[in-house]
Amino acid sequence: MRIVVLAGGIGGARFLRGLQAAAPEADITVIGNTGDDIHLFGLKVCPDLDTVMYTLGGGIHEEQGWGRADETFTVKEELAAYGVGPEWFGLGDRDFATHIVRTQMIGAGYPLSAVTEALCARWKPGVRLIPMTDDRIETHVVVDDPDAGPGGGRKAVHFQEYWVRLRASVPAYAVLPVGAEGAKPAPGVLEAIGEADVILFPPSNPVVSVGTILAVPGIREAIAEAGVPVVGLSPIVGDAPVRGMADKVLAAVGVEATAAAVAAHYGSGLLDGWLVDTVDAGSVAEVEAAGIRCRAVPLMMTDLAATTAMAREALTLAGEVRA
Amino acid sequence: MRIVVLAGGIGGARFLRGLQAAAPEADITVIGNTGDDIHLFGLKVCPDLDTVMYTLGGGIHEEQGWGRADETFTVKEELAAYGVGPEWFGLGDRDFATHIVRTQMIGAGYPLSAVTEALCARWKPGVRLIPMTDDRIETHVVVDDPDAGPGGGRKAVHFQEYWVRLRASVPAYAVLPVGAEGAKPAPGVLEAIGEADVILFPPSNPVVSVGTILAVPGIREAIAEAGVPVVGLSPIVGDAPVRGMADKVLAAVGVEATAAAVAAHYGSGLLDGWLVDTVDAGSVAEVEAAGIRCRAVPLMMTDLAATTAMAREALTLAGEVRA
Repeated sequence: MRIVVLAGGIGGARFLRGLQAAAPEADITVIGNTGDDIHLFGLKVCPDLDTVMYTLGGGIHEEQGWGRADETFTVKEELAAYGVGPEWFGLGDRDFATHIVRTQMIGAGYPLSAVTEALCARWKPGVRLIPMTDDRIETHVVVDDPDAGPGGGRKAVHFQEYWVRLRASVPAYAVLPVGAEGAKPAPGVLEAIGEADVILFPPSNPVVSVGTILAVPGIREAIAEAGVPVVGLSPIVGDAPVRGMADKVLAAVGVEATAAAVAAHYGSGLLDGWLVDTVDAGSVAEVEAAGIRCRAVPLMMTDLAATTAMAREALTLAGEVRA
Repeated sequence: MRIVVLAGGIGGARFLRGLQAAAPEADITVIGNTGDDIHLFGLKVCPDLDTVMYTLGGGIHEEQGWGRADETFTVKEELAAYGVGPEWFGLGDRDFATHIVRTQMIGAGYPLSAVTEALCARWKPGVRLIPMTDDRIETHVVVDDPDAGPGGGRKAVHFQEYWVRLRASVPAYAVLPVGAEGAKPAPGVLEAIGEADVILFPPSNPVVSVGTILAVPGIREAIAEAGVPVVGLSPIVGDAPVRGMADKVLAAVGVEATAAAVAAHYGSGLLDGWLVDTVDAGSVAEVEAAGIRCRAVPLMMTDLAATTAMAREALTLAGEVRA
């Protein structure tokens, strides 16, 4: 079975571990979000790709969900001693090595997809990990500009500045995948979608993770036209995000933070099946009325067993919608 | 008193500590060798500039003479795990931060001289440290090529490959300051020489440290025409280098590894005074016959007191040749 998964960071990576356990023989291709990539200290940092790679490769900081286990922060402390920031982005020494290798390869002319493949040669994540694009897409978030004059004003900041520095604590008025209109899917992305037996949307952020991947021209269309089951898992449980601050960016795109509203946001033209948590069983009828097959199952990724069960439910639902 | 010092790495840096102690009120400008700079992991590494900066700024690994105190090697280990080398060049985590800041500033368009000044704002070395040039000069060493076909052949390798990886253990046939002919002295270099009261050559390597600085068009001429005392200290004591492998590269340029031969190599057109070690007192007459005032004094930089005494002797000799 060939499975394509559109993945953001922590949520996508943890779901993938469950999927590998649920379908150990499957051939899994992960299309990774690169909209939250950022240049720091002259280095190219790809948080979502690395979270998937480290998680599936056994190098992740398990409790934190991102970054390396047994991490130290000597380089960052030294950079701060030079007065060089930002200090709000936590890059550890082990993590720095990944960004140094990536930046060196990019500088030598290799596209990000080739670089990601080279990095995965070390981590052996057990999936094929492809960035959504080799082109530059940067997710920006429009927020109030505290430095604006009388009458106020707004400005666009890098997603990481909104998410990490501001901790999504200020109103977001828009989410802009800057550069998306001119971007092309990375080599292998459309081919993987075209050859897939199932396409899954893990409980990743529907706006800044899966939404950004779908913003790359050609990817949404390829999924809609693939003619195979497309099944998603709600990142919203009981009207609140399971993890992270998805409700904040959902508001920015005018979507209510409910499992049903997220399904409607993807739409029946894209989504064939949708899993909501058992606490949201009341919304199953609403989702099905919108033309999307829906089941209520436990959706908390508390451990590998729970996550594996979720992945199994997603594959079961895919089998149902196919039939 | 304004003193200009042409410095390589360890020897130059340690001598400068003695000079600061011997002449605490002096205004010292250090013209640093950049011929052994190297790009590693996509980062610009300046070993000699950093050795001077760390030594005078209190960050040096004292026993080793180069690199940072309390150093760790996490980044390097991680790079090796990616299969990315070279492993023979010992970059520590603290050191990496320096190269990351430097590379980022170079990438933003700042010349190396401005970058060095910015790095020194942290370290406060108590001297003005200027790279010999903002242009790229790379010292290459011609060695036998073990991969050459029948009849043999030679190849040029980067100085660091000869010095660090090969440990200067193979014959060197030539030392080439590649790019020197088109290089210009960095801003401030010629001005500092023109305004100097004394110019000193510390017991640095006469070929790959001081020699490379003198290879930058304009620097040798400016020193020769400055009209102020130029005094050097022999890096060779008792027919062997005090530290490092200066004898190997002296052979490559056809100079005997003796204190007198090094003085003659600089020449009376450049050098007014020369200090040899007391064990080489027998060569004083030979050096003086070549038109260079010479004194035999202890030249082992065993501790700060000894080094301070050496610097004091150099300044005394400068006073003599002036008179």
